[in-house]
Amino acid sequence: MNQAEPILPRTGIGIDVHAFAPADDPQPLWLGGLFWEGEQGLSGHSDGDCIAHAAADALFSACGIGDLGTHFGTDRPEFAGASGVKLLGEAARIVRAAGFGIGNVAVQFVANRPKFGPRREESQRVLSEAAGAPVSVTATTSDGLGFTGRGEGISAIATALVYQLPEPGQPTTANGGQDA
Amino acid sequence: MNQAEPILPRTGIGIDVHAFAPADDPQPLWLGGLFWEGEQGLSGHSDGDCIAHAAADALFSACGIGDLGTHFGTDRPEFAGASGVKLLGEAARIVRAAGFGIGNVAVQFVANRPKFGPRREESQRVLSEAAGAPVSVTATTSDGLGFTGRGEGISAIATALVYQLPEPGQPTTANGGQDA
Amino acid sequence: MNQAEPILPRTGIGIDVHAFAPADDPQPLWLGGLFWEGEQGLSGHSDGDCIAHAAADALFSACGIGDLGTHFGTDRPEFAGASGVKLLGEAARIVRAAGFGIGNVAVQFVANRPKFGPRREESQRVLSEAAGAPVSVTATTSDGLGFTGRGEGISAIATALVYQLPEPGQPTTANGGQDA
Repeated sequence: MNQAEPILPRTGIGIDVHAFAPADDPQPLWLGGLFWEGEQGLSGHSDGDCIAHAAADALFSACGIGDLGTHFGTDRPEFAGASGVKLLGEAARIVRAAGFGIGNVAVQFVANRPKFGPRREESQRVLSEAAGAPVSVTATTSDGLGFTGRGEGISAIATALVYQLPEPGQPTTANGGQDA
Repeated sequence: MNQAEPILPRTGIGIDVHAFAPADDPQPLWLGGLFWEGEQGLSGHSDGDCIAHAAADALFSACGIGDLGTHFGTDRPEFAGASGVKLLGEAARIVRAAGFGIGNVAVQFVANRPKFGPRREESQRVLSEAAGAPVSVTATTSDGLGFTGRGEGISAIATALVYQLPEPGQPTTANGGQDA
Repeated sequence: MNQAEPILPRTGIGIDVHAFAPADDPQPLWLGGLFWEGEQGLSGHSDGDCIAHAAADALFSACGIGDLGTHFGTDRPEFAGASGVKLLGEAARIVRAAGFGIGNVAVQFVANRPKFGPRREESQRVLSEAAGAPVSVTATTSDGLGFTGRGEGISAIATALVYQLPEPGQPTTANGGQDA
């Protein structure tokens, strides 16, 4: 490949939804790679961190190599109950091993709570470190409508850009190896 | 255009939702370009293949040339009842005729069923062949929440990357003509 | 930077949902930068233009610089009640001041009404002028399902591509400065 030739980007998409645990079953809330003290947690076999999960799914989606179920299903019991940050880190490793560099990941979540603004940069730091690439996180509500508006759960949607590297499997950098 | 100059990518987004047909009105299920034996089908004037429809809409969206309604509306009766795969193939043809190359399309659908993993690669093959470019498909649930959680229908969301070609209308390849 | 080196694109995502105002509280409908005569409007502190809001949020998301709440929150009272088009224009200015060029923005909204097709190109013109870059808008329904299907509100989802410019803050063009 000519050094000046553009590396092909690919786009991916990932959605993840988790219900809040019932009020009579207090759970810790992990979201965006952070622990949220005093907030009711999400149900699920994992920590329910739908921001990290959506990010991982968007990475897999961009590469066309399956989804969370493909990579962290029942045949990999070592990931049962793993944190969202751990899953995102492993997803990024799988994606790079498949010959892709990661451009960036962007996630927006929809929920009435927790109030995200004050901890946004902290969350972005933790997730970006796990992915080895920029992960942005934003928040919104659904104006009282639907299951997020009724406070039944949290929905997160992510998009990711990856770059197929000239020689699959070679070491890459967070910017998709375009400096190479 | 200098050979080394990057071709401008554009991103697009597409959502499609179809309700399951009522239990007393058995319909065949077509999803992701595949027939799913023994599964209840989706309602709709077409085959209701929301994965293929979302993919087509994401392509149109990326090019800024309208949507499914614009291109397959009532003034094109030859597409009434057409399969999702046929619509996706025609969408890709329209997009290329408008001067764009297709980078890739990524779709995730949200539903309790069918169980998608075992047929994911088959679905990706059929849709990629229709689009003439890589189409990835992933699956998730909404953890029992909302209309997908209640099993009332299937929701699919797609993103696509296209490339405006130097000379609109010229033949292109699946990677957006960047090898040219 | 070598002229032939590709500029790094980044992807972003934005969702915005607004409920329709109650039937006994007639409001003007602003959507996609246009006024829709005779249609019931959306509730909200602003004009409720979820298409313009989703587009602005996707731009912020792509750059990793926060969201609508970060930039148009209570500490910037001059944007209280601002139109969606004004917010989108200001978002594009903020994004460029942060050193990014805008590739394109694509928005799809989900609603039973208004009928969008006849005014799609008008809407795209208004929003593209505000953003200084191509903004595509498409429409779909949710087949009678969920809050959009029940006509309770409008949901919009956007994706955006931005380009980090070689020297942050320098003037750029709508195509991300790739002609430079």
